[in-house]
Amino acid sequence: MTGPIARRVFTDQEFARRWQSLRRILTDHQVDLAVLVDADTIYYLTGFAGSGSAFQALLVPMDNEPVHLLRYTEELSFLSTSWLDVPAFYNDWDNPVVLAARLARKLVPRLRRVGIEKASYHLAARRYEQLMAEWPGALGVDLSDAIGWLRLVKSPEEIEQHRQAAIAVQRGLETGVAAVRAGVREREIAAALAGTLVRAGADTLFPGTIVSGERLRDVDGRLGDRTLQHGDLVRMEMTNSVNRYWARLTRMVSVGPPSAEMAELYEQVRLAQEEQIARLVPGAIPSELDAFVRSKLPIGLWTMQLSGYALACHECRIGWSELDRFWIVRDEYRPLAAGMVFHMVLTAGPGLSVGDTVVVTEQGGRYLTTYPRDLIVVE
Amino acid sequence: MTGPIARRVFTDQEFARRWQSLRRILTDHQVDLAVLVDADTIYYLTGFAGSGSAFQALLVPMDNEPVHLLRYTEELSFLSTSWLDVPAFYNDWDNPVVLAARLARKLVPRLRRVGIEKASYHLAARRYEQLMAEWPGALGVDLSDAIGWLRLVKSPEEIEQHRQAAIAVQRGLETGVAAVRAGVREREIAAALAGTLVRAGADTLFPGTIVSGERLRDVDGRLGDRTLQHGDLVRMEMTNSVNRYWARLTRMVSVGPPSAEMAELYEQVRLAQEEQIARLVPGAIPSELDAFVRSKLPIGLWTMQLSGYALACHECRIGWSELDRFWIVRDEYRPLAAGMVFHMVLTAGPGLSVGDTVVVTEQGGRYLTTYPRDLIVVE
Repeated sequence: MTGPIARRVFTDQEFARRWQSLRRILTDHQVDLAVLVDADTIYYLTGFAGSGSAFQALLVPMDNEPVHLLRYTEELSFLSTSWLDVPAFYNDWDNPVVLAARLARKLVPRLRRVGIEKASYHLAARRYEQLMAEWPGALGVDLSDAIGWLRLVKSPEEIEQHRQAAIAVQRGLETGVAAVRAGVREREIAAALAGTLVRAGADTLFPGTIVSGERLRDVDGRLGDRTLQHGDLVRMEMTNSVNRYWARLTRMVSVGPPSAEMAELYEQVRLAQEEQIARLVPGAIPSELDAFVRSKLPIGLWTMQLSGYALACHECRIGWSELDRFWIVRDEYRPLAAGMVFHMVLTAGPGLSVGDTVVVTEQGGRYLTTYPRDLIVVE
Repeated sequence: MTGPIARRVFTDQEFARRWQSLRRILTDHQVDLAVLVDADTIYYLTGFAGSGSAFQALLVPMDNEPVHLLRYTEELSFLSTSWLDVPAFYNDWDNPVVLAARLARKLVPRLRRVGIEKASYHLAARRYEQLMAEWPGALGVDLSDAIGWLRLVKSPEEIEQHRQAAIAVQRGLETGVAAVRAGVREREIAAALAGTLVRAGADTLFPGTIVSGERLRDVDGRLGDRTLQHGDLVRMEMTNSVNRYWARLTRMVSVGPPSAEMAELYEQVRLAQEEQIARLVPGAIPSELDAFVRSKLPIGLWTMQLSGYALACHECRIGWSELDRFWIVRDEYRPLAAGMVFHMVLTAGPGLSVGDTVVVTEQGGRYLTTYPRDLIVVE
């Protein structure tokens, strides 16, 4: 199952492990075949790093080799990145969803139970109906949660990718902080740090969220035109990925000395979070971890309802997919597992935040981002 | 229906026009209410420029004012960008899809026909089933194609946004071309032009596709590590947006003089495309436009099956949404309309491309990107 590979990120052992886990999911759900259309799931299983915008389907018969159906433009990407041997291509005038459904029937003529990912953005309602219409009498079995959970628990090779991403965002933050001063526009800071990100091997030039002053509470990551003033607080939430494994790093920068009140609040938030991160062990319950950190500060100061979220493997921005969503938040009772990677981020008062990328271990959360956690002050 | 607005891109007249068109679609489809979840549709109708990653729903009763259901974190974005007055918020521990479905029932107690967007990535199969489960006996009426078409036909205000994006990508290309020389890595060119993009008001630092040498045929837009050599051809496909309206601009750069063969092929492609663009008038048929340009060159040279695609209004990358997909390709028979905006792009031989952003007018395609169309040669 190994093709001619020009740029493979993971070892054969790593891919073999992932496929073993997938096969176990298929067995547990008693499906004849899975039709996986989520670009991130497909990347996870094959390493295929194509455009992601064109429809694709990975067909996995229970008793046979998988087949990857792709747009004809993806041949070069397939050859240079995929762990698999067998591509099938469709043309721009085809309906690739119907083609995938028919290919599934060819691989397993008597389809009874087909594994699909109902929570994936790539399986929009129309595509879902088109698939099911080609399989009369068959049942679509939702594998979303099982596959999502599999993707959330990271191997050492995957954690290494998160660590590389952590290094990239740290370098980006350093460059960004050096650009912060009164008179500079937020988007100039973004422009300054983008070059550093890309030279550090980041997948994209995405600068993360850089907001200041009255925009501080805006969780939105868009580029801003606000000009920094003396006395401003700036929230810098660096976000980028290496080989689609993300890291986030959130720090506050004060333009000139912060008020005593803000400095004190920041310290409270920072210390509360450090106690919480120390509790990120396998078996810990997100709802309890969230309640723990909230007990450390007056309730009126909380401005975000979650205190962390899993960083997954995604082509696009974090948070897009419900497939592998896992938050440190009230009413989330699924226990943490060793190897999960979180952006632990606390926000209080007028948008004061601190956040690090952390991996769950038996000894508590281990920081992948290692930037000093103090409030940063520039003149 | 006008709230306190800090950053509104379009006039009241423009929003009124869009809502009139939407109301006509609802009437034509005889729905009691529409539950719109596509982030781009919602942006189109309201200007709401929130995160886009959290679920949202715009509920539009046939006989009443719309209600916008949003994550609680979006309040500031709503107040500063939306044309609407009435937000409703959900918490991180809610199931917002079920909340939206119940809110719909509250607005129209006897739901019979509900307009939804089955082609939207934001209506994954699971969400679709969750919605329909709350509306027993009701029919989900697919509005995707009607809304997609509405979004594809641009008003003068929208074309002005595309034009601003065209200016930004042109400036980016200028900076990028100035960075091209033997010994430079592809990702250094991306880093060089990103600052220009952001200073030109682009929404993101996305540098587009920069590929060279053996990567030339890779349609994938990822950052590359290849080092340019004398004699290379470089394909630069600039892609960015202003207020979510996109422009694309594709040019070839030769590092040192190109071979006579490549120079001649490029000229053939360029001239064939100019004849095709002159034919982009209302009523023209995409399948015929595509056949026309293909008749101008030997068939073995075509490496892309489409010769253009509509540029829509999108938060994310172009091509993601099937809702408003419209290509200049074989078997597409829907006629062009005045005001549609396309990236007309021809690719031949080893990945030789030329492309411009063009608006359909009675006089033929009008170029929004105005960069010289010659093969660019640098030393």
